[in-house]
Amino acid sequence: MSQTPDSAVRTYIQHHRAAFLDDLTAWLRIPSVSAQPDHAPDVRRSADWLAARLTETGFPTVEVWQTPGAPAVYAEWPSADPAAPTVLVYGHHDVQPAAREDGWDSEPFEPVVRGDRLYARGAADDKGQVLFHTLGVRAHLAATGRTAPAVHLKLLIEGEEESGSPHFRALVEEHAGRLAADAVIVSDTGMWSEDTPTVCTGMRGLAECEIRLNGPDQDIHSGSFGGAVPNPATAAARLVAALHDEHARVAIPGFYDGVVELTERERALFAELPFDEERWLRTAKSHATHGEAGHTTLERIWARPTAEVNGIGGGYQGPGSKTIVPSSATVKLSFRLVAGQEPGHVEKAVRAWVADQAPAGVRHEITFSGATRPCLTPLDHPALQSVVRAMSRAFQQPVRYTREGGSGPAADLQDVLGAPVLFLGISVPSDGWHAPNEKVELDLLFKGVEASAYLWGDLAESWRDAP
Amino acid sequence: MSQTPDSAVRTYIQHHRAAFLDDLTAWLRIPSVSAQPDHAPDVRRSADWLAARLTETGFPTVEVWQTPGAPAVYAEWPSADPAAPTVLVYGHHDVQPAAREDGWDSEPFEPVVRGDRLYARGAADDKGQVLFHTLGVRAHLAATGRTAPAVHLKLLIEGEEESGSPHFRALVEEHAGRLAADAVIVSDTGMWSEDTPTVCTGMRGLAECEIRLNGPDQDIHSGSFGGAVPNPATAAARLVAALHDEHARVAIPGFYDGVVELTERERALFAELPFDEERWLRTAKSHATHGEAGHTTLERIWARPTAEVNGIGGGYQGPGSKTIVPSSATVKLSFRLVAGQEPGHVEKAVRAWVADQAPAGVRHEITFSGATRPCLTPLDHPALQSVVRAMSRAFQQPVRYTREGGSGPAADLQDVLGAPVLFLGISVPSDGWHAPNEKVELDLLFKGVEASAYLWGDLAESWRDAP
Ligand SMILES: [Zn+2]
Ligand SMILES: [Zn+2]
Repeated sequence: MSQTPDSAVRTYIQHHRAAFLDDLTAWLRIPSVSAQPDHAPDVRRSADWLAARLTETGFPTVEVWQTPGAPAVYAEWPSADPAAPTVLVYGHHDVQPAAREDGWDSEPFEPVVRGDRLYARGAADDKGQVLFHTLGVRAHLAATGRTAPAVHLKLLIEGEEESGSPHFRALVEEHAGRLAADAVIVSDTGMWSEDTPTVCTGMRGLAECEIRLNGPDQDIHSGSFGGAVPNPATAAARLVAALHDEHARVAIPGFYDGVVELTERERALFAELPFDEERWLRTAKSHATHGEAGHTTLERIWARPTAEVNGIGGGYQGPGSKTIVPSSATVKLSFRLVAGQEPGHVEKAVRAWVADQAPAGVRHEITFSGATRPCLTPLDHPALQSVVRAMSRAFQQPVRYTREGGSGPAADLQDVLGAPVLFLGISVPSDGWHAPNEKVELDLLFKGVEASAYLWGDLAESWRDAP
Repeated sequence: MSQTPDSAVRTYIQHHRAAFLDDLTAWLRIPSVSAQPDHAPDVRRSADWLAARLTETGFPTVEVWQTPGAPAVYAEWPSADPAAPTVLVYGHHDVQPAAREDGWDSEPFEPVVRGDRLYARGAADDKGQVLFHTLGVRAHLAATGRTAPAVHLKLLIEGEEESGSPHFRALVEEHAGRLAADAVIVSDTGMWSEDTPTVCTGMRGLAECEIRLNGPDQDIHSGSFGGAVPNPATAAARLVAALHDEHARVAIPGFYDGVVELTERERALFAELPFDEERWLRTAKSHATHGEAGHTTLERIWARPTAEVNGIGGGYQGPGSKTIVPSSATVKLSFRLVAGQEPGHVEKAVRAWVADQAPAGVRHEITFSGATRPCLTPLDHPALQSVVRAMSRAFQQPVRYTREGGSGPAADLQDVLGAPVLFLGISVPSDGWHAPNEKVELDLLFKGVEASAYLWGDLAESWRDAP
């Protein structure tokens, strides 16, 4: 396999480093906070800014797509080779809220470089990681002498990710034809650490529900009636207590149906990571680990399905006491899903299980919402191997594998477009996503530019070589 | 045993019926709502009104006792016989809030007679039942030719019962010397029904606690950490689920220590009552019965201890969903106690049990409040038999036995004064305590007057006859 001369890429990036940082700084000054309605004009300005920047970069087609919420930016740059694969890059241009008084050492929307770090809201999540693709594709062209990328390159950068992407799936469905791709590259994740470059191979899915248990028609006196009628708060508690067995496995019959188990190789790869449990607990702000028997903490959060109580409530919760049997109680559950699990099947299993548990005299209602499928790319998938090679060349060391325990809108791209989802991200846990003093490591940011520059050529070649 | 000629009592009551109702109506016009601060002057006016009325009745000593909250009224009328027993009558002159728009057919503080019923807030709970003792003692004197009652008669009518009697115990402790009594008569309860006169023989006690379970130091992301750290909402649910065993018995070791079991005779007496489960469920606004195996509904609410969840809360309870592992969860529990159980012993048992259950990584805090001892008078207690005879004579039929599932400040009188607590009440379930259109049945109200008129002579005699 022939290679773009890496030194040419590095030289190009070195020459354009200052201009790139100026651009990024200008974009980070726009407080594109999608969750705050008074920032709606800023989110719009952010989309327009990005569209202009992509046009300057050379994308022949750049469009701002309106939604009922915040606009997304779409761009296309076809390869000169009609047989080349099509790749869709996903990211987002909106940011989390931020205010100086939350604990920032400088204004969150006045980017500042201190040492080797650029501090600003959105520096890592996700403007820095979106923008590195603009310099990346220019470096790819410069180093290879091309006038168009080696792949048909598409970008979809949404504006509502930090608000839960409420219109994203509809947008993807509406434009499914134009978004069609052979692979999706998500640049909205991170790596293990500064010293340990990694590639993420999948995200968990999600099913969410609210269960309401109704007992007496109103709160009733616990002295007059308590002990002789069913209490819906007790029923709710018993439901939650029955969620897991003594091995902390989810006890809902059928829940594990189809689960793709970790291979020995995957378990070994996870185990190679320099995991420090004490440090992880500090990050988790927790005081003990606890989870499914027979699995490590990393396996539990990356590769095992879970059932979690996000909220429970019923009866009197004010100060002091009130001697009632509550009329109702509510439980909010979320289920993280792994490859092989179908949200629809999980929903059916949960409904049957709840119906089976609810005691006489307690009626139940279940509402499901927010189903997201899991994504997982097998380790030997050629596109994944391209990402791994691009990262290895950028970091000049072997990269390892991680997964992501959370769930994201990227799964909608996988579902609607039927394309595998790959992850190219250079953020590290210390970057402070959603927290004060968010920053990006400048060294890593330019490794991201470099990886992006290598990726398109590698993908096009491995595509040609694929059986 | 000689008897007051009952016809003389009835004639006296007949002659004073209209004046008594005028008095009661005047008192009911005073909106003595202790829970609403803007009615504080009305509660004070109500105390003054009652004090004046008791003076007119003939009580030589009448005092209004201030508290940090609402005032109580105290009255004393010594018997001519120094060896006579001392009896303390307990009731309250404050009322629940009421407003026409809550569903009243007439103004709650403008008493009105429709048919054989007097409608007004406080008609049954508790002004009607307090006031019947004034006409009762006059009828007792008139029919027996006495100038002072057959017993040393004391009345303590508090002004904060509907606000939880926050200063009652301190008041009783402060005045324990003057309140000293051989028996306490509580006139703040009811009977089984219009057709089934009954005497209540005991109330359950109460211990209350709040348990707080602390997990992560803040809410954490369920995608990043869920399934690998303990969830305090799950721990709270498991605690509540473990409260009862499969027979719906309280599963806390030591909880049942000392419990006085129902005798066969008591069970038989309960079973004789015309209990209609369908009707009871409608009153309980519940859709099934559920409780300790091996006991009937009446046994469960009157004579068995319980553990009830009054409230549970943790994590996100707003609309929609939030994928977190909650930082903490709280459970409010109340335990109804029966004769033989000590609130302090129950507290120790609960604390040990919680400490035993809480999983690693979840810290717990327990706060106990509001301990009330149970009261129970044995069926063969001579004072109880006096109450039973007085009621039988008033109703001209045998009376049956009930108990009260709730807990009340009367237990403080039992504790501080060391006197048995007896119950003389004529209210019926349809009277609508704490509800719109509260009323008292006029026929029953005057049966109450009559029972009160018979009681003092009977008590004095049975006291003399006691071994
Ligand atoms: Zn993001
Ligand atoms: Zn009352």
